[in-house]
Amino acid sequence: MAPIPAAGADHRAVRDPALSGRVRPGPLRAGDRVAVVAPAGPVPADLLAAGLAVLESWGLRATPCFAAGGRDARLPYLAADDATRAAQLQRAWCDPDVDAVLCARGGYGGLRVLDHLDRDAMAAAGPTLFVGSSDTTALHAVLGPRCGLVTLFGPMIATAAVTDDPAAREGLRQALFEPPAVLHGGPDARALVGGRARGTTVGGTLSLLVSGLGVPGVPRPPDGAIALLEDVTEAPYRIDHFLTHLLRAGWFDRVAGIALGSWKDCGPPEEVRDVVLDRLGGLGVPLVEEMGFGHCRGQLTVPLGAEMELDAEATTLRAVHA
Amino acid sequence: MAPIPAAGADHRAVRDPALSGRVRPGPLRAGDRVAVVAPAGPVPADLLAAGLAVLESWGLRATPCFAAGGRDARLPYLAADDATRAAQLQRAWCDPDVDAVLCARGGYGGLRVLDHLDRDAMAAAGPTLFVGSSDTTALHAVLGPRCGLVTLFGPMIATAAVTDDPAAREGLRQALFEPPAVLHGGPDARALVGGRARGTTVGGTLSLLVSGLGVPGVPRPPDGAIALLEDVTEAPYRIDHFLTHLLRAGWFDRVAGIALGSWKDCGPPEEVRDVVLDRLGGLGVPLVEEMGFGHCRGQLTVPLGAEMELDAEATTLRAVHA
Repeated sequence: MAPIPAAGADHRAVRDPALSGRVRPGPLRAGDRVAVVAPAGPVPADLLAAGLAVLESWGLRATPCFAAGGRDARLPYLAADDATRAAQLQRAWCDPDVDAVLCARGGYGGLRVLDHLDRDAMAAAGPTLFVGSSDTTALHAVLGPRCGLVTLFGPMIATAAVTDDPAAREGLRQALFEPPAVLHGGPDARALVGGRARGTTVGGTLSLLVSGLGVPGVPRPPDGAIALLEDVTEAPYRIDHFLTHLLRAGWFDRVAGIALGSWKDCGPPEEVRDVVLDRLGGLGVPLVEEMGFGHCRGQLTVPLGAEMELDAEATTLRAVHA
Repeated sequence: MAPIPAAGADHRAVRDPALSGRVRPGPLRAGDRVAVVAPAGPVPADLLAAGLAVLESWGLRATPCFAAGGRDARLPYLAADDATRAAQLQRAWCDPDVDAVLCARGGYGGLRVLDHLDRDAMAAAGPTLFVGSSDTTALHAVLGPRCGLVTLFGPMIATAAVTDDPAAREGLRQALFEPPAVLHGGPDARALVGGRARGTTVGGTLSLLVSGLGVPGVPRPPDGAIALLEDVTEAPYRIDHFLTHLLRAGWFDRVAGIALGSWKDCGPPEEVRDVVLDRLGGLGVPLVEEMGFGHCRGQLTVPLGAEMELDAEATTLRAVHA
């Protein structure tokens, strides 16, 4: 694929030639500057230091945009108040000298940040590579489409996935510096419903996807979308609740394929599989379990808003090029 | 208030004369027939027997519409498959010989029943008094408005609230047989924001209210609504998540007053209060905490879809008559 520079965009950003039409920022190069933000929960200082050291070992100039260990005075599950967290994110996103914005940690709080962002300003800024998962799903779902960018659902900097998981760390490094054409499912990956589907990747953490239902400015999956779904510490009946809500709201109406990630601490895997099959098995679209992204060891870094082909039997996600 | 018989309705049903225009079925009389249904989780036989004995002690002829102890073969958190649970509910609701339909127990499953119901048939049936709480919130939110009925958010038959809680049981009995004009908040009730508001009661269990967002056929609170909110086993950050979702979806836009029930096993009360004040304290509407409905001892039975006045300082909900 010949890189097609977007108007006014960083010369390394390429416009996805297929349906989504989104720009994929990057790849990064040694010497690039990255900002680490905390849009959700507090970030322990030791994990942040270890994560920054990893980024620096890759030749990146990494700057944290917040004080490690900080907490909101009133709501201790937030790293700071909403306006402060939003300002950090927006400033880093819009800074022309910042090549990537990497989330430090999840927890909860991205949802609260959304209404404090100047989305017009963020969409007008040059393309920024944005990386995060879990709670960050709420930000991906809005900012990727709004800014016309491919974003990355992957390890967060001040978590064990970067500091203590060589496979996950290497997957992130590749996604940043030399994006692979094919992502292979984890060791337990298998097709629950066979087939292949090609479309725009959407999704992330289930409970956060639900949080966009009925909210203005949160787009539904586009026609032919490949949905990625995973979660952590949600009992099987809660996964049922979330999937049933998405189904009743029509979220799956145009989805053409589904890749499931990990269901860490969600109860016995066979019970979760029964729920998933009950809710999604009848949609008539390819369905893969244990694709290897999410809260698991060795988690993949998966692009969102990208054109990809899901091959259920091969348990692969392949970048689609024109 | 002079009872105004609704066209084609049971002679005891009165049309609410104020804004909501809904019919309040009942009150019941000794000798009336009530059906006990299980739209959600499995129902233990001993609790069901104890609950039925209470109903019979009130002179009601109570019939369970399901087998106690039954479970869906595949999804063990459901009392039976969706079609079976829906058919039970619909048959009881539409039976002209049934004066009230009482839910046995919550858990999870009401949401899954909704799309299996013939709502037109249920709306065309004569008025039935419907009682349940917790998971039943999803049914109240749809069936009350759709059928033009006031429903009751209160104790479920095969739970300790009926079998082992004299105050909650007496509150239910009164709501069924001799509806009180005023409901008084529990011992810890107090105004977080003062004032009075008058409108249609809506709400119930927070996580189940969220499950209607973005779903066709689930109406938003009408103009001037009095919102009732409570939940169980949801950490403060989850309560924040739910309230933030409702806020972003505009659910509170027309709410004129808020009464909070119990937050059982939701963490330290002061942390929950901080979340509630952060999210709802700035709406500029009367706000009462610990109103006494929900998963607490002595839980009130509160009508939904009824015209009531919330007095925050007096911590009362008073039926509004023409």
